[in-house]
Amino acid sequence: MPSVQLYDTTLRDGAQKEGISLSVVDKLNIAQKLDGLGIHFIEGGWPGSNPKDIEFFTKARSLTLSHSKLVAFGSTRRPRANAETDANLQALAGAGVKVVTIVGKSSELQVAKVLEISLEENLSMIADSIGYLKARGLTVFFDAEHFFDGFRANPSYALRVLEVAAEAGASCLVLCDTNGGSMPNEITTAVEAARKLTAVPLGIHAHNDGELAVANTLAAVNAGVRQVQGTINGYGERCGNANLCSIIPDLKLKMDIDCVTDGQLAKLTEVSRYVSEVANLVPDASLPYVGSSAFSHKAGLHVAGITKWAESYQHIDPAQVGNQPRTLVSELSGKRNILYKAKEMGLDLPPKGEEAQKLLNQVKLLESRGFQYENAEASFELLVRRANPDYEPPFELVDFMIVVERRRRPPTRKNLEEMLSEAMVKVKVGNKIIHTAAEGNGPVNALDEALRKALLQFYPSLIQVKLIDYKVRILEESVGTESQVRVLIESSDGVEQWRTVGSSTNIIEASWLALADSLEYWLLKQKGGK
Amino acid sequence: MPSVQLYDTTLRDGAQKEGISLSVVDKLNIAQKLDGLGIHFIEGGWPGSNPKDIEFFTKARSLTLSHSKLVAFGSTRRPRANAETDANLQALAGAGVKVVTIVGKSSELQVAKVLEISLEENLSMIADSIGYLKARGLTVFFDAEHFFDGFRANPSYALRVLEVAAEAGASCLVLCDTNGGSMPNEITTAVEAARKLTAVPLGIHAHNDGELAVANTLAAVNAGVRQVQGTINGYGERCGNANLCSIIPDLKLKMDIDCVTDGQLAKLTEVSRYVSEVANLVPDASLPYVGSSAFSHKAGLHVAGITKWAESYQHIDPAQVGNQPRTLVSELSGKRNILYKAKEMGLDLPPKGEEAQKLLNQVKLLESRGFQYENAEASFELLVRRANPDYEPPFELVDFMIVVERRRRPPTRKNLEEMLSEAMVKVKVGNKIIHTAAEGNGPVNALDEALRKALLQFYPSLIQVKLIDYKVRILEESVGTESQVRVLIESSDGVEQWRTVGSSTNIIEASWLALADSLEYWLLKQKGGK
Repeated sequence: MPSVQLYDTTLRDGAQKEGISLSVVDKLNIAQKLDGLGIHFIEGGWPGSNPKDIEFFTKARSLTLSHSKLVAFGSTRRPRANAETDANLQALAGAGVKVVTIVGKSSELQVAKVLEISLEENLSMIADSIGYLKARGLTVFFDAEHFFDGFRANPSYALRVLEVAAEAGASCLVLCDTNGGSMPNEITTAVEAARKLTAVPLGIHAHNDGELAVANTLAAVNAGVRQVQGTINGYGERCGNANLCSIIPDLKLKMDIDCVTDGQLAKLTEVSRYVSEVANLVPDASLPYVGSSAFSHKAGLHVAGITKWAESYQHIDPAQVGNQPRTLVSELSGKRNILYKAKEMGLDLPPKGEEAQKLLNQVKLLESRGFQYENAEASFELLVRRANPDYEPPFELVDFMIVVERRRRPPTRKNLEEMLSEAMVKVKVGNKIIHTAAEGNGPVNALDEALRKALLQFYPSLIQVKLIDYKVRILEESVGTESQVRVLIESSDGVEQWRTVGSSTNIIEASWLALADSLEYWLLKQKGGK
Repeated sequence: MPSVQLYDTTLRDGAQKEGISLSVVDKLNIAQKLDGLGIHFIEGGWPGSNPKDIEFFTKARSLTLSHSKLVAFGSTRRPRANAETDANLQALAGAGVKVVTIVGKSSELQVAKVLEISLEENLSMIADSIGYLKARGLTVFFDAEHFFDGFRANPSYALRVLEVAAEAGASCLVLCDTNGGSMPNEITTAVEAARKLTAVPLGIHAHNDGELAVANTLAAVNAGVRQVQGTINGYGERCGNANLCSIIPDLKLKMDIDCVTDGQLAKLTEVSRYVSEVANLVPDASLPYVGSSAFSHKAGLHVAGITKWAESYQHIDPAQVGNQPRTLVSELSGKRNILYKAKEMGLDLPPKGEEAQKLLNQVKLLESRGFQYENAEASFELLVRRANPDYEPPFELVDFMIVVERRRRPPTRKNLEEMLSEAMVKVKVGNKIIHTAAEGNGPVNALDEALRKALLQFYPSLIQVKLIDYKVRILEESVGTESQVRVLIESSDGVEQWRTVGSSTNIIEASWLALADSLEYWLLKQKGGK
């Protein structure tokens, strides 16, 4: 079983995707997840290009990675300059990592038309830069930018670039299909030519502009490449980078190539969804292997098939990649679905007969108003409990009022504005009514603070509950500021996590509903536990 | 230049995608578009399986297709039955088309485990069904279901199925990778074996479960297949079908294979977006060739490249597929991006030298606070204009206050709650100050209403401006309700559309900033036009 090393560039090249913006904390969290997936190298960013990436590498020193090595990315020294005084190379050397990747041009036309320097100067830039970094004890990978386009137009120069990088001490020569337009057979030919040239291990960095990034990567592996670069979910500029979420199972399950363990592979779906969550991108349901539709079957021929033979309409066992099969339920099977869900949650009061029908009608009504219970099990459980006529809520909201104000300071301090957000709430617990108020960093935060202030008098243990995630999604976006808004809140008491939902045309009300559900759910669990 | 025939199954297999539901009118409209794209065969549906598809074929008789032939799809006769009396075959024969495709199993295991019939009976079903349809003067294509899985497990039976279909008179033998898990080299081997067996033209029908549907299709073409089946945007069950929007340009531009004319190819982007529009699916921006991000550039390095040489970071000229290049402004961008973007916008005052550097610093600062300009060109333009010391804004906000209240109605109307949202704004236009108030359906809507009310007194034409999209994104979600919030607003005056951004920990303030930018931008455009 030959082996391949995985190099993830989600945090650098992936972050070039339109609409993604990752904070330093996001990047650190993702790096930790990638370590769990068994990625060999994690490219964390370009410390020479922006301060956020410098901060990342500083903070990353406190990460405990059991498997992955962090890599800093940068370019070769500038033309007609000195490597010793190049700010970019210095930033790389100072990033606190043991492995760095530098990118240099390997296409004659790119050197002439974009860099506008001589072909020899380009070779010197590569050699000098690798030499500088090697002299500082670093392992250096060389990204040969535009390698395949360069090879097509002038193969001898493209290969000469590789030779120079190898002689300068690069530990891996990564062949980049920068514009993403190469075909698999071109990849094979060029990789074979590079292999004949040098014994230094080769890598592949593909983009998806012809919808062939995965195929090109596999073609390169078949031709002898030993390092594969890509991103989670194929995120990246334009049409994206090669998608590691497809490449990893293709390599391991289809080509029998060693890259991650069975246990690591089973985390693939979780990592894919985690990254889309952190990047705040709607997960693509149709993603191979990891998408929520990847193993789903509509009723009919296929479902009939899989009931007879599980493999009849699926190419692998979804559990191998941590995904699961789904049979799409029609509206008619809703009642069974609700019963199944209630049972799955181990509810004391699984609704029966008419009660279940009533509950189903309510779920349908609420879903038509924008509620969605797939990601909000705690709100669903409350819905089931509230269907019981004996249910007593731990608190009830009477009124609330929120004021948000923006006032300019006096003219002497022109242009300084102040935002003020306050909430007043009236809450009933048993027979008592509490009327209180709080300020906050925005209206929802003020409401949150005021509600807790009121309830803490009765339930001091609520202090453990923290909101760890707050998401807003606009439904029916085309109606502008009058749109229906869905709020999803994730809470934690330090041990468990639960999710609640609220929906309204008013974002404050939607937030209130999700907030109140979150606290009510936790209080019920405490009561049940006693 | 060898040629390939294109077979579109968006209306049948594509419609199996989760979340798609096409009406008969939708399907007719899409068929008309596919004709314009130069698709050779359009599979309209399965008349034997549902009444909607029968209606489609009835109404389709009035379509004027200048290029495409409509195809009806169905399965072979049932086991142990008579082709002459098979309802499915009768529906096919009665669909009013000249070409039909029937699907039969070519995998031994599928026949045994799912159909639970003898291997011989399966062959008879195929031969009888093709014979029945041929006798009625129809051209018959045969879809060999599970061909590649069948070939892997029992090649001689899979090939025997093809032989039987060829002998019965099929005009094309379409090899199906039904479960979508085959690798390109497996495709090549199996296609080559089939080619040796028969002179009847072969076809390929691939699914994307290994993210290889396009690559598998191209591998099959290289191995001699002459019909390519796929769907627009790769729509289809699970991970989708082979994406014709990538296959067509890959074939024509990369492999020099004749399939559509240059003029037809230039309609590709339009057809892709039309189909996603009709299917009511958000267009995938990162789709190769046709996505709105397919030729957009964010990295400073790349933009620097394309300003010198257009081809440096794009694999084809986007106009060939009817798409266009775009430059994104973002934290990753360099000074050149900003200059290029300003030029692209045709701004009167392209920032120079120090001014550009100052502007870049401001963009970086604002982006670190959560602003993002890549989807908000109007806000970016305002930023550039405001950098000019002579800039005079058409209005200035002085103060605003928002009240959101939720009050229970009197006890006689228990459980009826009311939400009230009001906004008061103070706006300065020239030397005048207007103080006004409005109610709204939620706090942001109230603010929107009040602001317009104030400004309409001065700018009555503002009444044309509508908010058509309002998006909220929570940044750094892990800090709960105190998170930074980014609001993106899309506006329209009925002719043009523009996008603005606001960011703050306070959703009201973030919305205000985006709202104010939207109106200010439009007012400036009006002024400039005079």
